Amino acid sequence: MPKIPPARPGMDLADVDTPALLLDLDAFERNLQRMRESLAGRNIMLRPHAKSHKCPQIALRQIALGAVGVCCQKVSEAEAMVEGGVPDVLIANEVVGMAKLRRLAALAKQAKVTVCADDAGNVKDIDAAAHEFGVVIDVLVEVNVGANRCGVEPGEPALKIAQAVAACRNLRYAGLQAYQGAAQHFRSVGERRTAIAAAVDAVKTTLALTAKAGLPRGKVTGAGTGTYLFEAASTVYDELQAGSYIFMDADYARNDWTESGIPRFEHSLFVYATVMSRTREDIAIVDAGLKASSVDSGMPRVADFPQAEFLKASDEHGVIRMNGSSGFNLGDKIKLIPGHCDPTVNLYDHYVCVRGGKVEALWPITARGAVW
Amino acid sequence: MPKIPPARPGMDLADVDTPALLLDLDAFERNLQRMRESLAGRNIMLRPHAKSHKCPQIALRQIALGAVGVCCQKVSEAEAMVEGGVPDVLIANEVVGMAKLRRLAALAKQAKVTVCADDAGNVKDIDAAAHEFGVVIDVLVEVNVGANRCGVEPGEPALKIAQAVAACRNLRYAGLQAYQGAAQHFRSVGERRTAIAAAVDAVKTTLALTAKAGLPRGKVTGAGTGTYLFEAASTVYDELQAGSYIFMDADYARNDWTESGIPRFEHSLFVYATVMSRTREDIAIVDAGLKASSVDSGMPRVADFPQAEFLKASDEHGVIRMNGSSGFNLGDKIKLIPGHCDPTVNLYDHYVCVRGGKVEALWPITARGAVW
Repeated sequence: MPKIPPARPGMDLADVDTPALLLDLDAFERNLQRMRESLAGRNIMLRPHAKSHKCPQIALRQIALGAVGVCCQKVSEAEAMVEGGVPDVLIANEVVGMAKLRRLAALAKQAKVTVCADDAGNVKDIDAAAHEFGVVIDVLVEVNVGANRCGVEPGEPALKIAQAVAACRNLRYAGLQAYQGAAQHFRSVGERRTAIAAAVDAVKTTLALTAKAGLPRGKVTGAGTGTYLFEAASTVYDELQAGSYIFMDADYARNDWTESGIPRFEHSLFVYATVMSRTREDIAIVDAGLKASSVDSGMPRVADFPQAEFLKASDEHGVIRMNGSSGFNLGDKIKLIPGHCDPTVNLYDHYVCVRGGKVEALWPITARGAVW
Repeated sequence: MPKIPPARPGMDLADVDTPALLLDLDAFERNLQRMRESLAGRNIMLRPHAKSHKCPQIALRQIALGAVGVCCQKVSEAEAMVEGGVPDVLIANEVVGMAKLRRLAALAKQAKVTVCADDAGNVKDIDAAAHEFGVVIDVLVEVNVGANRCGVEPGEPALKIAQAVAACRNLRYAGLQAYQGAAQHFRSVGERRTAIAAAVDAVKTTLALTAKAGLPRGKVTGAGTGTYLFEAASTVYDELQAGSYIFMDADYARNDWTESGIPRFEHSLFVYATVMSRTREDIAIVDAGLKASSVDSGMPRVADFPQAEFLKASDEHGVIRMNGSSGFNLGDKIKLIPGHCDPTVNLYDHYVCVRGGKVEALWPITARGAVW
């Protein structure tokens, strides 16, 4: 991490050095409120995904507005959240290997910790770690509800893992992890609704079997920003795991939201960049490339200049075709909307939080690089 | 950065937690030697690019084997190198804006610092910063030799910037930056040779004009791992900026090297990953996704398992089709060859340096995140 930060509180936005990760606090706070309002009066809890922001300061703001806790993907991410004051963390993912499971069990002494499983051998390992540390760990069975990533198939295979959990002395069977990740970026509302309807059916099939087997119902948790109101309307989900709603990246913005009921979240996260070379007609080179904005889900968009097009990124450069826009003089600073927020946030050590053209705070991204 | 590191010196490789960035020290050292041997007897210096490794420990090893210094892309990267003991840094890039230029001038009090320029206004700003700090800064004119990124056109436009530099009291005109970045990944040797021949012509045209105008020749610097022996053979280049040769990523490995004269550098950099879910036939899910290996130049390759195919990456997961390979049991650890080394290295805080199946050292990636 560079010793000299790109900004100080009180500084004008125009003086922030680049590239920097800007958080527009007004837009961010409106997104938090919109999420709260969209769930008001529904019998469902929000457990936002912290893999999007990796920042306890944001997690605590989400909890202050009613979230029950956060999700994490990795033990090290959960460690950072607990150290930052978050009292309840669900690792919405499998944790494999005794080294990680011992850290998980140690963490369960400090906070409420839940983890997912999709394998009977792994369940035994979690139990052994819990025993070693003298804790009881809540375990959700991850069900493959269409994303085809982790998770056992719904029905009998899921029941078997649930029974394996229930048979362990140091574990508590806590319900089902049922996240349809693939559906989040299906562009049409119809495709997303159909995918979630299938996920809900898979959950219901599994719940019927676990009930028949005498297991407690536990909770059902899942959903992302692209679909969360469909899961909320299903009545089988108890917790929603949306994360990206706070930032709204360029790729999510390409979804159709019409008649989804999901509010129009605003872009609140930007990569601030400087025009650093202007030797060719209609082309501006900015100082933000692959190390400043992840391009896995497409190039960033140029904020405030709808005609301008971010053509390509190399390690430290971005090539923008201005398409006749002015405002790209050498040294001008512009804002980019990242293609994909989560891996972009993971490149930075701080959010430069901005309101009314001034830097209000620097929030450390304490779980940056927390991949293990 | 997570508080608990993924490895300790002396540990068995099998005990390293994942994902982790492994450096195979034997392969790395052979790559350093191969580069040295390939330049032996030629009248040309190596100034390897530190944007690939971001690690003073590696820079100092390169210098110990004859490199004259390193290249950097950013001031913060140069600051990290100088702090780590590197005495001579070329910022092979434009530095725009007085905030950055003041840091550059401050750095020039501690080490030999050279920077590039492609704009007369920027040249004046560099001069002002140098004056403010009481230093003389070496400036190279960046010439567009075919990459179409930064740089002025060869010939008269380049001469004008060179003259602007020479007219400044606190600057020294030091020659030409002539890097053909686009050519590095042209797959065929013929295409790469042709592109470098055109770059050499552009350099010669420009050198003829600067000589005629009475400017000192200065040096010509450029080249990457894909082409460096062609620049070396041209007799107009004085310094080579190859960086990736130390690691050799999957994308560079797709180049044809036959009859290029360039040695076959080995893969020395790996992302160590654990199989974390095995619920589907012939599919293994590993714990390394977009935040563990940059996919901008394609998916990682699976080392040691030529049949296995890394199909896709999400934030924290990789999907591998085993194509019948065994060795992907739950909890097994495998090595991935990153698609693109530079942005992958930028995700990690340490190299886990391995020799003979043991962790020999952890080298901090002190310029990780140094984008401004």
